[in-house]
Amino acid sequence: MNIKRYFPILQWLPLYSRETLVSDLLAAVIVTLMLIPQSLAYAMLAGLPPEVGVYASIAPLILYAIFGTSRTLAVGPVAIIALMTAAAAGNMAIQGTEEYVTLVLVLTFMSGVMLLLMGIMRLGFLANFLSHPVISGFITASGLIIASSQVRHLLGLEVEGANFFMVIHGLFSSLGEIHLISVILGVGTLVFLYANRRWGKSFLNRAGVSLYTADMLSKASPVFAVTMTTLITWHWQLDQVGVRVVGHLPSGLPPFSLPPMHPALWQDLFVAALLISIMGFVGSVSVGQTLAAKRRQRIDPDQELIGLGAANLGAAFTSGMPVSGGFARSSVNYDAGAATPAAGAFSAIGFAVVALFMTPLITYLPVATLGAIIIVSILSLIDFKSIQHTFAYSKSDFAAMLITIVATLLLGVEVGILAGVGLSLLLYLYRTSRPHYAVIGRLPNSEHFRNAERHAVETDERLVLLRIDESLYFANSRYLEDIVMGLVIRYPQVRHLVLSCQAVNLIDASALDSLRTINRRLKDSGVQMHLAEVKGPVMDRLKTTDFLDEMSGVVYMSTYDAWKVLHERAEAEESGQSND
Amino acid sequence: MNIKRYFPILQWLPLYSRETLVSDLLAAVIVTLMLIPQSLAYAMLAGLPPEVGVYASIAPLILYAIFGTSRTLAVGPVAIIALMTAAAAGNMAIQGTEEYVTLVLVLTFMSGVMLLLMGIMRLGFLANFLSHPVISGFITASGLIIASSQVRHLLGLEVEGANFFMVIHGLFSSLGEIHLISVILGVGTLVFLYANRRWGKSFLNRAGVSLYTADMLSKASPVFAVTMTTLITWHWQLDQVGVRVVGHLPSGLPPFSLPPMHPALWQDLFVAALLISIMGFVGSVSVGQTLAAKRRQRIDPDQELIGLGAANLGAAFTSGMPVSGGFARSSVNYDAGAATPAAGAFSAIGFAVVALFMTPLITYLPVATLGAIIIVSILSLIDFKSIQHTFAYSKSDFAAMLITIVATLLLGVEVGILAGVGLSLLLYLYRTSRPHYAVIGRLPNSEHFRNAERHAVETDERLVLLRIDESLYFANSRYLEDIVMGLVIRYPQVRHLVLSCQAVNLIDASALDSLRTINRRLKDSGVQMHLAEVKGPVMDRLKTTDFLDEMSGVVYMSTYDAWKVLHERAEAEESGQSND
Repeated sequence: MNIKRYFPILQWLPLYSRETLVSDLLAAVIVTLMLIPQSLAYAMLAGLPPEVGVYASIAPLILYAIFGTSRTLAVGPVAIIALMTAAAAGNMAIQGTEEYVTLVLVLTFMSGVMLLLMGIMRLGFLANFLSHPVISGFITASGLIIASSQVRHLLGLEVEGANFFMVIHGLFSSLGEIHLISVILGVGTLVFLYANRRWGKSFLNRAGVSLYTADMLSKASPVFAVTMTTLITWHWQLDQVGVRVVGHLPSGLPPFSLPPMHPALWQDLFVAALLISIMGFVGSVSVGQTLAAKRRQRIDPDQELIGLGAANLGAAFTSGMPVSGGFARSSVNYDAGAATPAAGAFSAIGFAVVALFMTPLITYLPVATLGAIIIVSILSLIDFKSIQHTFAYSKSDFAAMLITIVATLLLGVEVGILAGVGLSLLLYLYRTSRPHYAVIGRLPNSEHFRNAERHAVETDERLVLLRIDESLYFANSRYLEDIVMGLVIRYPQVRHLVLSCQAVNLIDASALDSLRTINRRLKDSGVQMHLAEVKGPVMDRLKTTDFLDEMSGVVYMSTYDAWKVLHERAEAEESGQSND
Repeated sequence: MNIKRYFPILQWLPLYSRETLVSDLLAAVIVTLMLIPQSLAYAMLAGLPPEVGVYASIAPLILYAIFGTSRTLAVGPVAIIALMTAAAAGNMAIQGTEEYVTLVLVLTFMSGVMLLLMGIMRLGFLANFLSHPVISGFITASGLIIASSQVRHLLGLEVEGANFFMVIHGLFSSLGEIHLISVILGVGTLVFLYANRRWGKSFLNRAGVSLYTADMLSKASPVFAVTMTTLITWHWQLDQVGVRVVGHLPSGLPPFSLPPMHPALWQDLFVAALLISIMGFVGSVSVGQTLAAKRRQRIDPDQELIGLGAANLGAAFTSGMPVSGGFARSSVNYDAGAATPAAGAFSAIGFAVVALFMTPLITYLPVATLGAIIIVSILSLIDFKSIQHTFAYSKSDFAAMLITIVATLLLGVEVGILAGVGLSLLLYLYRTSRPHYAVIGRLPNSEHFRNAERHAVETDERLVLLRIDESLYFANSRYLEDIVMGLVIRYPQVRHLVLSCQAVNLIDASALDSLRTINRRLKDSGVQMHLAEVKGPVMDRLKTTDFLDEMSGVVYMSTYDAWKVLHERAEAEESGQSND
């Protein structure tokens, strides 16, 4: 049982059939062919030699097939993670140096270890601290950064910049040095890929191609672009006239690599590796869950951490780069009919064949083509509509999104995420620190109690019924004290105060102290304090303390019970007084 | 109206009567007399010359009388703030140097500005992030640190240490150098003060003294101890045989001081000043609220920030130290019958008289006496019972408390508070990230729905009713996706899923995205999604989006409505199918 949890392969391999073998093999061939350009491109985006992208698509896939729980997720280099890798390693070394490659290996290794540890310690919930607006803002900002960084390849320029705005500025100020043939290749590829993405499928379909084939052909457009631009560049030897090409790549299986174990290095890269791990996990799990739901399957987020951790460790020891489950990869895999993780293992074999025999074929691949592939695949990430929707829905979510975007563009990817997470936590706590509350009254002839300010209800000014719409915890416990003491001043006749707790899911130690304080202060003011509708788990906890004995009043099952008893008692006391 | 809010003095001064004048004057005389020893002692605790404690009890009191909202709060030097001041200034300069005094003035000034700004921006809620267990743990740890730091004065030793444990170690290793006469004076005072605190009041009362007089006499015991030990030391000239005395203090009103304006210094002291401000505010407000409640008065926390800010600015420009509303001071003031803040202003005059004429009288006051006064007044802060109660009530609150205590003792006061706040936030988010949920069913013959696992209820496996007991926000939105998809797998027959939202006080943008995702995934699995019992404000927000159109099902007013409609529909569909 437990072994099967940690090795999900044991769940599906014993049931493996000839039919699933055929579907998996077919899917693997399609995935391998279609994802070669992307793998090269994302390695380039990470500032690494293109073959690293191929290397990172071999061992990690096999390891994920053993440890991952998604049947259709495809791991490998992905754009956002490649960007984050480039940012972290670029802080400490220059792209193209051996030191830089080493830093990437250390990042990959650390990310693998962190994911593995988080999986074993079941810390997958940490990813929850990334709210959707923060993720969406971060992805949009990253998309803009990635696109701007690739425009130089399209234009044949050499532009660097510390942040997004400086890159844009650099591009504009060096527009005079544009390399025309590169532009024709790059922008041509861009237009072709973009047109294909927008209209390719429906065009082919209308031309009589079946929907499935049209879809696959349309997804294969990067392969077509790579083939065509490589052939053109080779035929006219365009590298001789200034078109930058991928150049000679080594042939052979990925060489074994050993990330250096320097604690000082680990400390410097800690935050970056953590953010890479969490962003990779978040992206991967959301893709995995979406695909699993389509087939009524389920993935286990904590085991996914272990799967991704193993995949990254695999990449770290085979000259790779940080990997994650990508949306594009996985949907190709899913659509091509992958039935089990074996499809991933088979496409690892496919990539191994590429690494062994096919690298000479891409010597003349223009860098501008890869830039165009990156830009088109990143365009779908830039989501201005979501910014607009968030603005309309919630100002505080929008604030968190905006700070993430601005900080990412201006100060870099790490600061961007951290600022967004920090602000969204603060805003959430601020929101719950001033919970909604209502003085409630009885809807005539019923047992229902509603907000006295909104409804025509019976009230009794000697008896205040207060409903708090939030769990009581440290961030709002003092506010509760303020509310109650404010009510005592507003209702000078009050003799009984009932706290109606149907929306209270938790009373923490601070709130308990505040309840004690409120009880004491109410007693000083001559008011009895009661509780009503306390939920089971909350009541169980209160019973472990002496608060219920200390409280001047009692606990009623329902607000109606409290009303019935206390209203009558107040009436009786009143008539008793007037009898005196 | 608005002017009166910012100048609360305008609310009470016009109504000022001869009677309140008499009560306030009497209270002022008592407060002045009783608080001289404490003021001297807390200045010493902050590493400052004793007269600074008197200086800090003049201008701040007048300013608080103008800007503060509590009728009975007494501001001045307090123990915890003095300790925090010593820790912050001691990091950057040596006690006794002019630089150290300057640093304290800068801290006082910054704290004044911060409090004022927080008051104007109405940021009083920031104090809520200090949970009670963190505050209580911090105060206990501070109490231990303060007590351990004063033991050396009692024993006539010179011991320093970077943290609590090192001070304790230092005390033990230098026990051989104890100064006997100092010990007799110090420990004698300690025993006298402690015995008086435990038994003094009831002893005097039984001896025939009225309860009020007994209480006041008992509270005057530090004054008595100071007078006696000073007389003894002066008479036998004990300072000649090694008893450390306060020595010659300057006579005169507090000299004007100008805290230096160095941005670099501000940056270094920023965190310390912020924590001093917030801790001072938290302590002050809780004392103020407790006393106000006894007379059914109210204080305004945001205006309290302005009052405390003004008081600290006053201290910064009159050679003082950071001040706050103290429990001991305020309860003496309250018990002595102070009716308005004018009592504070009058006792400021009292302290000015002390500064002008009485400093020669305390030349022979032994430092050991002050140490004993500090230890006894701090003992009530050390609250091991509260640790025990917190442990019994909530393990996560206990964890926050423990980390605060350990970090404060080991790493200092600032790290201690920050670690406690950080952990309590994390734990709260962890708790709400896995909310309680229940599949609910109908209590037979009723409109009530309860947890199907706890109660004998009617259920329908084609119709799953899910109740989530928490607001839906980013920290639990992914968990919600997991829960729902898990239910779809557990109930393969399900056709309708109703999310019952009576405990959902908020749906943020992340949760909205998750609801969209859930809706899409349920649709992929052939399940319709519905909502029930959505609260007004939550519904208003959902209506601004297109989610309700997009959702495959509808929104029902109550869970019962949903059950009635969907149960019948499922029955109809079933019989329709069986007819086919």
